[in-house]
Amino acid sequence: MTKVSSTISPIQWRDERLFLLDQRQLPQRQEWIEYDHPDQVAEAITMMVVRGAPAIGVTAAYGVVLAGRRAWHTAGVTWKQAMTAPLARLENARPTAVNLGWAIEHMRRFYRNLPDGESPEVALLAEALKIHEQDVAANRAMGKHGAGLLGSQSTVLTHCNAGALATAGFGTALGVIRQGHAEGKIQHVYVDETRPWLQGSRLTAWELMQDNIPMTLQADSAAALLMASGKLDWVIVGADRIAANGDTANKIGTYSLAVLARYHKVKMMVVAPTSTIDWDIPDGSGIPIEQRQSEEVTHIYREPVAPANVTAINPAFDVTPAALIDAIVTEAGVILSPTTEKMLTIKGEES
Amino acid sequence: MTKVSSTISPIQWRDERLFLLDQRQLPQRQEWIEYDHPDQVAEAITMMVVRGAPAIGVTAAYGVVLAGRRAWHTAGVTWKQAMTAPLARLENARPTAVNLGWAIEHMRRFYRNLPDGESPEVALLAEALKIHEQDVAANRAMGKHGAGLLGSQSTVLTHCNAGALATAGFGTALGVIRQGHAEGKIQHVYVDETRPWLQGSRLTAWELMQDNIPMTLQADSAAALLMASGKLDWVIVGADRIAANGDTANKIGTYSLAVLARYHKVKMMVVAPTSTIDWDIPDGSGIPIEQRQSEEVTHIYREPVAPANVTAINPAFDVTPAALIDAIVTEAGVILSPTTEKMLTIKGEES
Repeated sequence: MTKVSSTISPIQWRDERLFLLDQRQLPQRQEWIEYDHPDQVAEAITMMVVRGAPAIGVTAAYGVVLAGRRAWHTAGVTWKQAMTAPLARLENARPTAVNLGWAIEHMRRFYRNLPDGESPEVALLAEALKIHEQDVAANRAMGKHGAGLLGSQSTVLTHCNAGALATAGFGTALGVIRQGHAEGKIQHVYVDETRPWLQGSRLTAWELMQDNIPMTLQADSAAALLMASGKLDWVIVGADRIAANGDTANKIGTYSLAVLARYHKVKMMVVAPTSTIDWDIPDGSGIPIEQRQSEEVTHIYREPVAPANVTAINPAFDVTPAALIDAIVTEAGVILSPTTEKMLTIKGEES
Repeated sequence: MTKVSSTISPIQWRDERLFLLDQRQLPQRQEWIEYDHPDQVAEAITMMVVRGAPAIGVTAAYGVVLAGRRAWHTAGVTWKQAMTAPLARLENARPTAVNLGWAIEHMRRFYRNLPDGESPEVALLAEALKIHEQDVAANRAMGKHGAGLLGSQSTVLTHCNAGALATAGFGTALGVIRQGHAEGKIQHVYVDETRPWLQGSRLTAWELMQDNIPMTLQADSAAALLMASGKLDWVIVGADRIAANGDTANKIGTYSLAVLARYHKVKMMVVAPTSTIDWDIPDGSGIPIEQRQSEEVTHIYREPVAPANVTAINPAFDVTPAALIDAIVTEAGVILSPTTEKMLTIKGEES
């Protein structure tokens, strides 16, 4: 069987430091930034040096390693207390992605059992690396599950970037597309440019071109015309948070695609690790939606594209009701036409 | 009764020349370009110095004046023959807007009866000015008809720019909004930025701010979230060509809004002069859709926003089926839930 790979690995731990590929500079420049302070990592998450829910989770886990090292240096045996503030800052760096809170909470539970009298750095690092590896493994499992849903010669559309860059590697939605392409099931990928941050133009197009997967970029508002042409089989996207009933928060425009897909009888697939599921939230109405700076809409590369002092809104996400989703693909399996009951079947299977 | 005005007049004839406000430079710079050659006018239409179906029609009429003057200077009594080539170039400057062909054909029929032995310039100019004035008058009539459909305190969304800048003045969709605002019926206007050319950010936001109409700019893909919030009453847009059955070609993304509006029980209004109706085309399948350069998607202000050599498509328009349109507003009256039969009722009423 083909071993499908992606060479893109945007989060790396080297020389006792965290390195992030600066996604704000792609595709024009490939620049790495190094971090040795947890507050800098929180800032990097807020400023979208790294983005994508699973990638944010893995980055935050390394942020906890840096917090642990500093706490030991400054507070000695009371290092656990000294973790509280930096971890809260990491946790609040962005509001919508649940993987961020999940990773912090996982690390918190892990270090509770560590001894007070020695440096936690080595143990914390081992745990962060485990989260990192599990994310890649989960992506590969999702890739196989999701590709299993595709017919031969499928034409698909993706929105935003749920690729190797949004994860620890390989990708969620793009993992399904990579695996599907390797299995000969993908004929063509359409990519929404994904305003305002242009993740589609800047990141997804770049990833697919790196892997020689045939793709075409388009403006977000051209998706309906593509669907009306009858060419499209699936919309495949990632997720930032999934409620217990399957309602899914993802990049602004996803809900629009789901409504359009249902109208045009195109299928809708959400691909995300189980760490994206927030079992405490019964439905999408409880998911906080991040409102970002209006400058992302009014300026492009710091150049104004609207009148000075214009009022603009910039909701970063929207919520797609489960009823408009044909399949949620996780590493633990596929849920077709998700409901609270069906979602519970994978609860025990989480990695 | 309030006389509603707009000070914006993007097409002007002065000093025996045509002046166009360069819409590519707005809102950062207000630059006028002057024209005395019809081929330059054709180029200006192609390059979108001027855009918007009615504005293109009026501009082309002035282009015919310039062609007539040149033809008389170069060909004398055979000036009518010398008009053929420049008028064909004007007519082919852009494919989708029917007003372009309408204006050229109107001028062609007009000069057929002019004497061969004298300069046609004065007569052609008088006719072009008549088209110009009729367009403004039609906009004012549409404004009143359309505002009559709005309830009190309406919240509306517009896409692209169907304003004073897209016409000879006042606007079609924005004419309805201007009139509705003056009548106290408009609470708020949401404006789609309208990728790839950003007519919403650059032109519509600018126009509404000039006239102090309360507005908020958003990414195109945020429209569905706005509709789901229950805030929106109407989507109000212009048209580039309307088929005999009411199917409407307009800026890419309009069809998407129409599907989303119907799903969310938001009403859809198309505002266009009767010169936009192409009676020769029975339905939308016969409307040619302009495919523009992919650079409009891959670059913003000449800066690349996608990888070099990426493949991109850039359909400039889409077609909204009449079944998704609640009202077509023309200067000759309103057609609710348009059909071929209902459309015919205004055929005799054309200005």
